[in-house]
Amino acid sequence: MTELSPTLTLACDLISRNSTTPEDADCQQLMGERLAAAGFQLEHLNFGEVDNLWARRGEQGPVLCFAGHTDVVPTGPLENWAQPPFQPIVRDGMLLGRGAADMKGSLAAMVVAAERFVSKHPDHRGSIAFLITSDEEGPATEGTVKVVETLVERGEKVDWCIVGEPSSTELVGDVVKNGRRGSLNARLVIKGKQGHVAYPHLARNPIHLAAPALAALAAENWDEGNAFFPPTSFQISNIHSGTGATNVVPGELEALINFRFSTESTVEGLQARVRDLLDQHGLEYELHWTVSGLPFLTEPGALLDGVAAAIKQVTGRDTQPSTSGGTSDGRFIATMGTQVVELGPVNATIHQVNECIKAADLDILTDIYEATLVRLLA
Amino acid sequence: MTELSPTLTLACDLISRNSTTPEDADCQQLMGERLAAAGFQLEHLNFGEVDNLWARRGEQGPVLCFAGHTDVVPTGPLENWAQPPFQPIVRDGMLLGRGAADMKGSLAAMVVAAERFVSKHPDHRGSIAFLITSDEEGPATEGTVKVVETLVERGEKVDWCIVGEPSSTELVGDVVKNGRRGSLNARLVIKGKQGHVAYPHLARNPIHLAAPALAALAAENWDEGNAFFPPTSFQISNIHSGTGATNVVPGELEALINFRFSTESTVEGLQARVRDLLDQHGLEYELHWTVSGLPFLTEPGALLDGVAAAIKQVTGRDTQPSTSGGTSDGRFIATMGTQVVELGPVNATIHQVNECIKAADLDILTDIYEATLVRLLA
Repeated sequence: MTELSPTLTLACDLISRNSTTPEDADCQQLMGERLAAAGFQLEHLNFGEVDNLWARRGEQGPVLCFAGHTDVVPTGPLENWAQPPFQPIVRDGMLLGRGAADMKGSLAAMVVAAERFVSKHPDHRGSIAFLITSDEEGPATEGTVKVVETLVERGEKVDWCIVGEPSSTELVGDVVKNGRRGSLNARLVIKGKQGHVAYPHLARNPIHLAAPALAALAAENWDEGNAFFPPTSFQISNIHSGTGATNVVPGELEALINFRFSTESTVEGLQARVRDLLDQHGLEYELHWTVSGLPFLTEPGALLDGVAAAIKQVTGRDTQPSTSGGTSDGRFIATMGTQVVELGPVNATIHQVNECIKAADLDILTDIYEATLVRLLA
Repeated sequence: MTELSPTLTLACDLISRNSTTPEDADCQQLMGERLAAAGFQLEHLNFGEVDNLWARRGEQGPVLCFAGHTDVVPTGPLENWAQPPFQPIVRDGMLLGRGAADMKGSLAAMVVAAERFVSKHPDHRGSIAFLITSDEEGPATEGTVKVVETLVERGEKVDWCIVGEPSSTELVGDVVKNGRRGSLNARLVIKGKQGHVAYPHLARNPIHLAAPALAALAAENWDEGNAFFPPTSFQISNIHSGTGATNVVPGELEALINFRFSTESTVEGLQARVRDLLDQHGLEYELHWTVSGLPFLTEPGALLDGVAAAIKQVTGRDTQPSTSGGTSDGRFIATMGTQVVELGPVNATIHQVNECIKAADLDILTDIYEATLVRLLA
């Protein structure tokens, strides 16, 4: 057996710790020891059950921060794994284990890249930082968002941030995320009046009342998107009404709705348009809104250009910036005015059983991170 | 305390037996003893767990049959009853207990009416019969429907049938049911494709696909009804779709639909129109149909005229024939070509806690049943 590279060795060490959300399982301890040895100052910023690590090397700006999470999603059925999920293995060129892609592989690559860069450029300009949480896959209320609050309170500025989320689709570096759509949820309750199906004139069926309005919501064109964002999309993810009995008209209907919205729409604008449409249908209803995240965008500039050039240098590839897909902790970091880019391995198997990535991709990713450090801070 | 009338005494005796579906709790034994003493021939036609009684006095036609059920619906929360539900009481002129209205009061009135009629007209023409089941409030698969099959197999004809269901709305005899709409159920499954709400182009949301079609079904005018039936009505009683998660587009939607249909529509016609409408919306779907009952109608004739005249004679009231409301075992009996009328006490409290009727109404009902016997068989 060939010896594993430093990045793969560290990745395996992290994966072997069962850090299912919100557990950290001493992953941050391990990363912190390595970073401390490379000259980083450590702060353990723990909130509630959640461990967070803030590490920084340097006093001056600009600050380039690597961000990520040590927690992983649950394994799913163990019997469906080819290998115990917390006993990582490299076989046939693939690294297999829970967190290989999302995102202990990236964490290992970041640490090794920082070590290498620091050893070659001990007197680099600006600062390198790490913002690591164990609460990204869960409620995400005690993790990055709280660390960001702490940084803002003490006026600590982060200029650039690379989040290690698995952004790549087929080849490492083929896609970077330079922003995310916003996410707006609501629980919609449409009121009717319960009764017997044989006496419909004594009841008001909320399913019948809701159907035309839901059809109109689903058909609505919310915006056209723009150069950076696809059009805002609307989805009804859940709908429930009925007592189970076939002879009872139910009293109300509940639906869960979600917007993934571009910077062409606002939370307030979307809320008003939903209310207008429901009012046009003469409905009696309740709406309970939750803003999961505002949209953010990192336009071409030092960070995006630096990352793209590093990818080209290491892989020969022209990367594709994208704002599609789900949310990440990048939405919290962007609120500081930070330029944020997500760059990590191929995301094909994340959250699945037998999560895996090409082992060699982690070494390529390490080179890309290091090349980015060189371009921005050497 | 004044002595209770014979009908109230028998009603209390029946109510004191806990015959929650499918239990009979020897109610039929008690009724059978009384009828045997009045010259009826008894047959216990038991199917599965269900006790049924077929009793007949006379060999010739025409046959006037009293039909009903000894089973009652569950009590609901005992603490909400003013009186234990199986300890009937007459207080302030009201008979209180589970089954007082639906329909042990009617059963007692039928038995006492038959006893009186037979004692005065021992050589009546035709035959008097009783068709009593203990499976009307439950699945209704081993009760009246099986007794009817038995009668049809041996060629035993029933010309007229009075079902003791509580047909009256405010005063006893104010409404008789001379037919019922049909009831047609379906489970509708609309197929989509599961996916992530952030990537709607990779999914097909069955809620979005279904909404316009359900709106069209709810808005459809199925027929105008006719002189005897209100228009066919359509209700969606249940709708369910969604995984519970707010970020997952579900794979399918399930809805339960029900038609209450007049004789202007047919099962096959309604099924074809639903399919056509779903096809027009380009849906992929499954429909699983259940016919709960075909519509039946007893037009003016010997039975309806006799019942109306008896009500007029006893109460001075002009009764109102109606085909509205839910289903009853009358739908099975009508399949024999029998004229069927439902006539019973006021239905305001059926299936509720503190089920009750005016005690005096049972004596009025006894007189109406007896007067009907006189008009048809004396």
